[in-house]
Amino acid sequence: MAKDWKQAAAAKQQRINDSIPEEWRIDTSSLDANVMNVPSTCGLLSKSELDITNSSATELVVKLADGSLKAVDVTTAFCKRAAISHQVTNCALEFFPEMAMQQAKELDEFYEKHGRTVGPLHGLPVSLKDQLRVKGLETTMGYVSWIDKYDTGDSVLTALLRKAGAVFYIKTSVPQSLMVCETVNNITGRSVNPRNKNWSPGGSSGGEGANVGIRGGIIGVGTDIGGSIRVPSAFNFLYGLRPSHGRMPYGKMANSMEGQETVHSVVGPIAHSVPDLRLFVTSVLEQEPWKHDSKVIPMPWRQPEHDATVQKIKSGKLALGFFNNDGVVMPHPPILRGVDKVVSTLREDGHTLIDWKPYKHDYAVDLIQGIYASDAGKDIHTVLSASGEPAIPNINDLVDPTRSGADITTLWDVQLQKWNFQMEYIEKWNQMEEKLGKEMDAFIMPITPTAAIRHNQFRYYGYASAINLLDFTSVVIPVTFADKELDKKIDNFKPMNDMDKQAYHGAPIAVQIVGRRLTEEKTMAIAEEVGRLLGNAITP
Amino acid sequence: MAKDWKQAAAAKQQRINDSIPEEWRIDTSSLDANVMNVPSTCGLLSKSELDITNSSATELVVKLADGSLKAVDVTTAFCKRAAISHQVTNCALEFFPEMAMQQAKELDEFYEKHGRTVGPLHGLPVSLKDQLRVKGLETTMGYVSWIDKYDTGDSVLTALLRKAGAVFYIKTSVPQSLMVCETVNNITGRSVNPRNKNWSPGGSSGGEGANVGIRGGIIGVGTDIGGSIRVPSAFNFLYGLRPSHGRMPYGKMANSMEGQETVHSVVGPIAHSVPDLRLFVTSVLEQEPWKHDSKVIPMPWRQPEHDATVQKIKSGKLALGFFNNDGVVMPHPPILRGVDKVVSTLREDGHTLIDWKPYKHDYAVDLIQGIYASDAGKDIHTVLSASGEPAIPNINDLVDPTRSGADITTLWDVQLQKWNFQMEYIEKWNQMEEKLGKEMDAFIMPITPTAAIRHNQFRYYGYASAINLLDFTSVVIPVTFADKELDKKIDNFKPMNDMDKQAYHGAPIAVQIVGRRLTEEKTMAIAEEVGRLLGNAITP
Repeated sequence: MAKDWKQAAAAKQQRINDSIPEEWRIDTSSLDANVMNVPSTCGLLSKSELDITNSSATELVVKLADGSLKAVDVTTAFCKRAAISHQVTNCALEFFPEMAMQQAKELDEFYEKHGRTVGPLHGLPVSLKDQLRVKGLETTMGYVSWIDKYDTGDSVLTALLRKAGAVFYIKTSVPQSLMVCETVNNITGRSVNPRNKNWSPGGSSGGEGANVGIRGGIIGVGTDIGGSIRVPSAFNFLYGLRPSHGRMPYGKMANSMEGQETVHSVVGPIAHSVPDLRLFVTSVLEQEPWKHDSKVIPMPWRQPEHDATVQKIKSGKLALGFFNNDGVVMPHPPILRGVDKVVSTLREDGHTLIDWKPYKHDYAVDLIQGIYASDAGKDIHTVLSASGEPAIPNINDLVDPTRSGADITTLWDVQLQKWNFQMEYIEKWNQMEEKLGKEMDAFIMPITPTAAIRHNQFRYYGYASAINLLDFTSVVIPVTFADKELDKKIDNFKPMNDMDKQAYHGAPIAVQIVGRRLTEEKTMAIAEEVGRLLGNAITP
Repeated sequence: MAKDWKQAAAAKQQRINDSIPEEWRIDTSSLDANVMNVPSTCGLLSKSELDITNSSATELVVKLADGSLKAVDVTTAFCKRAAISHQVTNCALEFFPEMAMQQAKELDEFYEKHGRTVGPLHGLPVSLKDQLRVKGLETTMGYVSWIDKYDTGDSVLTALLRKAGAVFYIKTSVPQSLMVCETVNNITGRSVNPRNKNWSPGGSSGGEGANVGIRGGIIGVGTDIGGSIRVPSAFNFLYGLRPSHGRMPYGKMANSMEGQETVHSVVGPIAHSVPDLRLFVTSVLEQEPWKHDSKVIPMPWRQPEHDATVQKIKSGKLALGFFNNDGVVMPHPPILRGVDKVVSTLREDGHTLIDWKPYKHDYAVDLIQGIYASDAGKDIHTVLSASGEPAIPNINDLVDPTRSGADITTLWDVQLQKWNFQMEYIEKWNQMEEKLGKEMDAFIMPITPTAAIRHNQFRYYGYASAINLLDFTSVVIPVTFADKELDKKIDNFKPMNDMDKQAYHGAPIAVQIVGRRLTEEKTMAIAEEVGRLLGNAITP
């Protein structure tokens, strides 16, 4: 790269800022730490635009399909709200309202002409993590050396969402390398949590978390190799689906450590409700992604799996395992309270809750950490060197050129260990089912050891990453908020560090519900019921 | 290993030979090259034992279930025939009729007591490649250093077959390392083809090919990472299924290069008919293998896929691609005639046959060869060194300690190339379908460039291995036999070497039918129809 990396980054940042039309700029000079109410108070959005952006995706696609809403109006509303979102959370790496409006216009014309939608997402704005390629735009993924490289084609998922009628308007920020559960890079700096600018929105799909959190987006597309969908969902009081590998198409996306297949990163939705997650999944599966991405399993939406779970729920017959710590890091009191709340709520409703002993999570976490580091950061280091930008502090451990990576024999051994561990884990699950005399439908566990965290405080990925190693299906469920009165230090609590608990008052608390591999229908249905019982099924 | 490797190997060979009861020994001193008729002429098998072993598995399980056959009788028949089979083809690495009879006796007792079968394979003998572990037996896989190590548990597939009622009685021979399409090792030497002792039965599941070929087995279990199910099927006039990865459980089996996941070896059946292949697949899927092997996809038998294909067949609406050479190695005239025969037979029946240009098979073959060699044979070398046995000549190329293997970065690059190639290939397929305005249901191609081959002549794996790289579902269909009158040298034929074509008179000719990934139901249904049209649907 000829130019100084700082110049390149500054130019790109300027382009992002310039992409916000003058009339959508707001005064950000005297905002509170919590900016959640800015969209409704700043005066930029009309009443109907607020209504649109406060709706569920499920509602919007119905109205777009029956003609009571136009794609142009819905797109305008979300573009404006995302413009606000970026100004208050710094969530965007690309913002392209003109392209979005063009797409919306064409969809309206199609509808006008043919009297029908192009697909199940007709006219619905969908926000994309800046790993998904959109023809004609950059995908920097926060790497300075990838600036000025314009994509000549869509990623598989982008193309299928487009075919389903989705409108693209924003690509959201990520941490440099993606290998961190916060969101900071040398191009745009740090994304912040709309509920408190001192908190992280999580990562690596943190731009999605912030943007969907403040409803600059309604369904956001994230990816997850160690919590990157689930942590931003948790930190922004959102639902998030980490599907098992092979259900959703990852083909032709940008990535760090491309070709690493020991643990696959997966792509999935972040949204305000399970029905919206489901809308995303069913809409993508309708496009037969397995015909375009060889890693996708030819497994259409299985309505009978969903229906059977709903039936089980109605008869109060769910059997769910749970644990509140993985034996490695004790969660903070708010998280412990969150698990308790979910467990007691389900018990009160008559379901069976089972004390489930986490099986060798310490081993799993060590194993996957080794996998992340199997090239000793060489790939990331190469991409950084190309521009001369420094590594963000969070990944210093990962990118240590003095270390040596794994050789083939070591890698094969690790892969064998992974497989054996997975098989041992499901045998434990089978044994529990034998003991119960019925299925254990899923289990409940923390997704992070803390509520939404202050910047640079994210330390322990294990609650997320152990599930990646197992490739289980996981859905994040927002539960409640940290409360300085309720979440007193408990006797046997071992703090992870000395940070002030008061700083977390009001921070979102979440759990994840974990199903066996490739049980997206069932696990989402259970998550929906848990949300309904908690009163968090819809969170406008 | 304290003893000399030759002593250890000789002792193991002696144990195998001793496992054949005195009364089942036959005089092998003056046999023809073709031993196919020995079971019916040697006098060891009674009329009813011949009838049993000449039946289909599908027929036998019906009779075992309705009580008209006893597990003990069926097991006796196959044990006796396998004893003959081993004496004439040298196909066994373990033979354990006593354990089999005990299992059969228990199954009969269960049936007697409960008036029902234990599962869909109740009392059916199933032969196992010596990679599958059976509690209490050795799994040497032809490696001398693995002699005297007794398995403390079953492989996942063994356990599920056992649960389904299968009886185990023989574990069949493999080439040292498995990485060869012939069958020779330093323990038992070479397995031969029952149709001509000068031909190979193929490999690496060559012991299965020989044993099922001469009906010492009715359904044999093989594995395939580069043709090892399909080549023995082809060379023994059998049907063989190479399922896509993730359909059948490979967990807890022995293997070379364990933990290698760039291209997965898969496990599948070898049999005399598609209904028998299907019986195996449905019986295993009924046991929910995904609950025991984390790599298995929770995808039960999809009867609607089967039914839809049958419907298409009935209305003469199959659309099948075909090619007779991959652009790398031109097959021998018998194989070209085999493809022609299949194509013209299907055309005559009204189906659409499409000239399908093989897409970059040369590239695929190079890529997968590199994958096989990615540790430069280190794993195999280590296992050989443990006993001091030499490598078989066929794998000298693979085990070359002077070469260096791939590093992690190279491996990731190869994995990315593989994925991209797979996606390009299915896009070509999609483009053809767009052009046709309908699905291309599968394509027909050679599985080897020759009919069943003379020993040490197997050179080119590409017809098989390109399909492994693509992870497509493949079924081998026996077509006809090489004929010195019909298979004259053709004008544009480029011989692979100077061997005498006359030596192949009577050798089995096969093709494979290749479906998209995870289309076992559909591809088997098409294969069954092709076999029916060829008159090879049942081959007693």
